[in-house]
Amino acid sequence: MSTLQQFLRNSINHIPFDPIKLDTPIPLNQLPTPALIIDLDKYDLNLAKMQNHLASHDMGLRCHTKMHKCPTIAKKQLALGAQGICCATVSEAEVMQASGINQILITSPIVTPEKVDRVIALAKHSSKLEIVVDYIDGASLLNAAAAVADIKLRVLIDLDPGMGRTGISPGPKALLLAQHIVYHCPNLEFSGLQMYIGNCMHTLGFEKRSKKYRDLLQQGIDTKELLESNDIAVPVFTGGGTGTYDIDSSIGALSDLQAGSYAFMDVEYRDIGGQHGDHFDDFAPSLFVLSTAISKPQDLLITFDAGIKSLATDTSYPELKNIKGVKYHFGGDEHGIVQLDNPSQEIVLGDKLPIIPPHCDPTVNLYDFYYPFRNGVVEEIWPISARGKSQ
Amino acid sequence: MSTLQQFLRNSINHIPFDPIKLDTPIPLNQLPTPALIIDLDKYDLNLAKMQNHLASHDMGLRCHTKMHKCPTIAKKQLALGAQGICCATVSEAEVMQASGINQILITSPIVTPEKVDRVIALAKHSSKLEIVVDYIDGASLLNAAAAVADIKLRVLIDLDPGMGRTGISPGPKALLLAQHIVYHCPNLEFSGLQMYIGNCMHTLGFEKRSKKYRDLLQQGIDTKELLESNDIAVPVFTGGGTGTYDIDSSIGALSDLQAGSYAFMDVEYRDIGGQHGDHFDDFAPSLFVLSTAISKPQDLLITFDAGIKSLATDTSYPELKNIKGVKYHFGGDEHGIVQLDNPSQEIVLGDKLPIIPPHCDPTVNLYDFYYPFRNGVVEEIWPISARGKSQ
Repeated sequence: MSTLQQFLRNSINHIPFDPIKLDTPIPLNQLPTPALIIDLDKYDLNLAKMQNHLASHDMGLRCHTKMHKCPTIAKKQLALGAQGICCATVSEAEVMQASGINQILITSPIVTPEKVDRVIALAKHSSKLEIVVDYIDGASLLNAAAAVADIKLRVLIDLDPGMGRTGISPGPKALLLAQHIVYHCPNLEFSGLQMYIGNCMHTLGFEKRSKKYRDLLQQGIDTKELLESNDIAVPVFTGGGTGTYDIDSSIGALSDLQAGSYAFMDVEYRDIGGQHGDHFDDFAPSLFVLSTAISKPQDLLITFDAGIKSLATDTSYPELKNIKGVKYHFGGDEHGIVQLDNPSQEIVLGDKLPIIPPHCDPTVNLYDFYYPFRNGVVEEIWPISARGKSQ
Repeated sequence: MSTLQQFLRNSINHIPFDPIKLDTPIPLNQLPTPALIIDLDKYDLNLAKMQNHLASHDMGLRCHTKMHKCPTIAKKQLALGAQGICCATVSEAEVMQASGINQILITSPIVTPEKVDRVIALAKHSSKLEIVVDYIDGASLLNAAAAVADIKLRVLIDLDPGMGRTGISPGPKALLLAQHIVYHCPNLEFSGLQMYIGNCMHTLGFEKRSKKYRDLLQQGIDTKELLESNDIAVPVFTGGGTGTYDIDSSIGALSDLQAGSYAFMDVEYRDIGGQHGDHFDDFAPSLFVLSTAISKPQDLLITFDAGIKSLATDTSYPELKNIKGVKYHFGGDEHGIVQLDNPSQEIVLGDKLPIIPPHCDPTVNLYDFYYPFRNGVVEEIWPISARGKSQ
């Protein structure tokens, strides 16, 4: 017997937060597959490169934990100098806060009483908690709840870059909302603006992406100036991501970047193209799904044990990491069928091979644990504590 | 500190097995969204209808738990008369066995020592455990491990219906494998054949599906006769699914059906067409993702809080259950953008509406719990204990 609230509170630490050290280190080829593995050498380089790049451009990093869902990784990013983390959902933020992290921005608006209650509980625990709002009634709802709790809740206005997903239109409408918050919501503290231009992150080709992004961001820059010219301070202007990190640092408008995927990368991000070629390789793939060849019913096919329950299906196709001349097709929930057109190495039953995920975020969300490795050996297991926390 | 084996054993009951009774029943509109909800009236009808249909045709039901991943549902299916359950993976079978179910068939072959060890552990606990094999060395591997454990392991031969996913070719090759098992693998007990014709389940149109299925199944029927004419008894011939349940019962070749989706249904299955129309409605949708309208950045769009981390993306599109004249588009990991072409009812921010999942299996796999409801109220929570058990 339990109330729903007790049940939900218990589910926060459903999966542990801390790494599990293994008594006996395990070679990769003894892992049960499909297994989510992290190449620690590549991962370390990715984390350091983004942090150093932004620091040298006087930009902060507010890394998006919706990508990795893992307190261990978030704490590493903070230790390297990130100013805080982003969470996409309230339940993700609950996990991150319960693991000991306070500098959290919830990047998606909420509108229902039960979610508001949970956000207020988070804010009571830490005054550093921030959340976005994107309409006047939403701000009033948060303000009323903050008043009852006798706290001051930090909010940012979410601007719609034309995606039509979340956010208020840049310009006069955003100004009205800011004025409402500043003058009519005494229990809200206005922290600034968020403009995440998700419709640019995967634009193919650096020049095209850069141009499109600059055009869209300009509306956010103008809105910031509009607020400031109306005597409303805008200390934070947050947005951007892995696909625009170097564009954002050259523009210099954002206070901090909301990047996530740079830590792991994936097929989709690689293929957007970089400043110097068709592959965006500023960050190296460090996340793989290790999968076993389990059946060979036909001569030119071999079947792996990673299907649509182990790899995201929303964008491009998975790729075998080290083998050319093959093509991966989804073969249902538990299987991937690899077409052996002209394989650069022989694949035999029992082989455990790394697959580059098409899209890292929803792939990670399918697993409870990472197996990080160095020199082919896994020494500890990292819980993906916020996996499935989509609420 | 832990060994990998201890860690994996602990993860079997990572999520509890039994329903959690709520102190205070909760109306649907107070659930935190996105939430996976089950309409119990529809679900009960679906379960009874399939069981009764098969019983009246002298066929068994070996329901596939890869779909629902839930011991509570599996036990209900067994209580209604199912002869056993199917699991797609070893870790799924570990959860089901730990919850108290012994009649388990693992429907996908395994080839690595660590998986073989785990299957042997399951078989030591229950002699009813069965697993498929699809090549001679695979049978030898299982036989050697069973000999070491001093047990007799029940195996079925998996036949490839031309999908090229798993299975051995029907006909002489399958006979050779059966002879190998019967005459050279003293620690294996040959139970029969599996032929899951997955490439037919979603063939559009009943007549077309029926014809294609009958043609492909004939190879399995012929193989069964070939084995029998070579003095090898074939007590089990298992296969089929929701999309062929009435075709299989009219053919009468299978001993039991491996159906899963009939309990919940989804957009993909509805659209295959039934005997009497464009919609396959022998079973009613009983599973929905309850989602909240959280943002309205543009007049003709409204954004819900269910994206690609809450709904499968591998087949068709999600649909709002009760509203016509709208179209759901994926808007990233956490959002769905609904295009308001000509909505049959107004949708306002805060509305919690049920969405029919495009594909039930991989949607279920994104959640830890079901909220079953009757008369709009949830009285208990059912753990999806085998969620993420893709190993």
